Amino acid sequence: MKDLNCTRCKATDSPNRITNVCKRCASPLLVRYGLDRLKHSWDRESLRERSFDMWRYRELLPVDDPEEIVSLGEGGTPALPFTRIGENWGIPRLMMKDEGFNPTGTFKARGAAAGITRAKALGIQKVAMPTAGNAGGAWAAYAAAAGMELMVAMPVDAPESNQRECLLYGADLQIVDGLISDCGKWVERAVEEEGYFNAATLKEPYRVEGKKTLGLEIAEQNGWAWPDVIVYPTGGGVGLIGIWKAVEELARIGWVTGKPPRMVAVQMEGCAPIVEAFRNGWKESRFWEGARTAASGLRVPKALGDFLALDALYRSDGTAVAVSDTTAKTALRTLARTEGCWICPEGAAGLAAIRKLRREGWIDGRESVWLMNTGTGMKDSEWAG
Amino acid sequence: MKDLNCTRCKATDSPNRITNVCKRCASPLLVRYGLDRLKHSWDRESLRERSFDMWRYRELLPVDDPEEIVSLGEGGTPALPFTRIGENWGIPRLMMKDEGFNPTGTFKARGAAAGITRAKALGIQKVAMPTAGNAGGAWAAYAAAAGMELMVAMPVDAPESNQRECLLYGADLQIVDGLISDCGKWVERAVEEEGYFNAATLKEPYRVEGKKTLGLEIAEQNGWAWPDVIVYPTGGGVGLIGIWKAVEELARIGWVTGKPPRMVAVQMEGCAPIVEAFRNGWKESRFWEGARTAASGLRVPKALGDFLALDALYRSDGTAVAVSDTTAKTALRTLARTEGCWICPEGAAGLAAIRKLRREGWIDGRESVWLMNTGTGMKDSEWAG
Repeated sequence: MKDLNCTRCKATDSPNRITNVCKRCASPLLVRYGLDRLKHSWDRESLRERSFDMWRYRELLPVDDPEEIVSLGEGGTPALPFTRIGENWGIPRLMMKDEGFNPTGTFKARGAAAGITRAKALGIQKVAMPTAGNAGGAWAAYAAAAGMELMVAMPVDAPESNQRECLLYGADLQIVDGLISDCGKWVERAVEEEGYFNAATLKEPYRVEGKKTLGLEIAEQNGWAWPDVIVYPTGGGVGLIGIWKAVEELARIGWVTGKPPRMVAVQMEGCAPIVEAFRNGWKESRFWEGARTAASGLRVPKALGDFLALDALYRSDGTAVAVSDTTAKTALRTLARTEGCWICPEGAAGLAAIRKLRREGWIDGRESVWLMNTGTGMKDSEWAG
Repeated sequence: MKDLNCTRCKATDSPNRITNVCKRCASPLLVRYGLDRLKHSWDRESLRERSFDMWRYRELLPVDDPEEIVSLGEGGTPALPFTRIGENWGIPRLMMKDEGFNPTGTFKARGAAAGITRAKALGIQKVAMPTAGNAGGAWAAYAAAAGMELMVAMPVDAPESNQRECLLYGADLQIVDGLISDCGKWVERAVEEEGYFNAATLKEPYRVEGKKTLGLEIAEQNGWAWPDVIVYPTGGGVGLIGIWKAVEELARIGWVTGKPPRMVAVQMEGCAPIVEAFRNGWKESRFWEGARTAASGLRVPKALGDFLALDALYRSDGTAVAVSDTTAKTALRTLARTEGCWICPEGAAGLAAIRKLRREGWIDGRESVWLMNTGTGMKDSEWAG
């Protein structure tokens, strides 16, 4: 790591101190690495000796010493070819990155592994975060593995399965009678009064580094080239930001030099602030009133990193699509019967969007398309039934 | 594959025809490979170029052509060091093979992948099986991926989560008002009258080959040497039989020549036929009347392959242990809070047994001990809570 860099005012900070956001403008910080040096000192051959998990890319992760890593087997998820449904839909080169193969069953494990690893290395002992669902379970698992205290603030309507896993992993679960924004305030109070470290989305610089490994794995599994299109169900958008960061870093170190992928953000019609912003050419989204979707991971009315996600869409020549919960559910069921995979509601939204984009011609039948399924369907088993 | 070999009368059969059990004595058949030839033609170096899933060992699997493989990303599961709980319990070299990282969340995926792959290659189009739980979900997923018909007969008290996944994957689910043995009869009728292929445990030779890859992966992840002890929660015992088959085959091809592991079968006190048989030195178990345990995977009153599992225990200088559901649940909760892993009830039984064996001195504090966690805890989330 070279430094932390503000995403708005470009001020820098040190990665070797406990830091949340930019001290000057309070915007999210992202890690910068010595990429020019890495370009010469690190090559793809070195990966051959390493196991297939997200830490194989540790030169591009916030870890100084492999001994620091808090791991539960995250990353290294399969890339599954969906030949049958792909041919039915006229997209024979359809692939799915199945993030259900992660600890706690979702891609949130990547962010938690990176965030907890760095927090532990910096000597943090007490972490607090607001969450509407799966991130809480993931952080609770990694905090347990690291022997750290975790306080999770969850809205009263959060999925029971997520509440249960937080408790099982020994987290201090605070059920807040309000929205996710009220949980955020709860956490800020705990940070001020009780000395917790705030690990809310993009309020610390390292979670996005874990999500970035999604992009690194896509590149490697696709033979160090980008697919034409990457489809990402977008709630907070950290995965999208992370994948795009991987695109830029791999270009800088010369590992993937071809055309970058067109990034697609998918949301549900009942909560589509990024889609609205993209259609209007805005740099930021507006708060979405009355958010309604059964996909809790997409029930994010206004993401802190919206401007970064939108920037990736514009720069990649991508797009943003909204689908209905019903269409997503139909896509999920079709997939289960055709390919034997049970994806989460968020992944199902992505799948439905792919069909829509193919029908509209935005996706060409010769293109390679990668769907990010952000978690296993087993955690939302009632939704599918 | 060289041939199919009867586990009792040693008669042989061809792997290139559709076959269930020994034509002479109706006992289970196991696949034999040309191991002497493999010893010279295949080396561990060849694995370096292959992705870390169970098919990397395809020379020891029932597949003639990699194109035949029906895969959903099974195998290649993490081996997690449990340093913290291990030190608390005086077993610092405690590891867990986490089979929750499989399609459908359990190790049943390995057997289903091998079984469906071979069935498809042999031209089988309709498969039927009795199951009390997770195997049904796994076979339903692979049958969907292969475009095959699957009929699953499940007892009326089978977990709802397993019923739901079978339906989602498009299987023909038959709820039988009776025991698993009644489901077996149901399947036999469907086989006779409607031309289904019977894929019940050890009624076809290939499922155990998939389970065998558990053993192959343990050996590789442990640096091509066996741990001192492997602890396996034993219902039907196919995994135990498979791991022991891996021990014998790896010795024959010269890849692991050291001391074999001591195999431990773990059952619940409410259904412990293998433990009873082991304590009495029997070659086979007796039907366990009134089986009672919340761990559906261990609710097997009399396993068809009991004699093979017992043989592995005797020959490996192993043992068999029963624990209570309560002790298992306590072990599960301790593990979740200490290591951040949520294991299934069956895995929890294994963990509780390890603690017991350590206290009794059967496991020494310097020994390396590998627990097989056969599935994710998320599928039995109410049990843990």
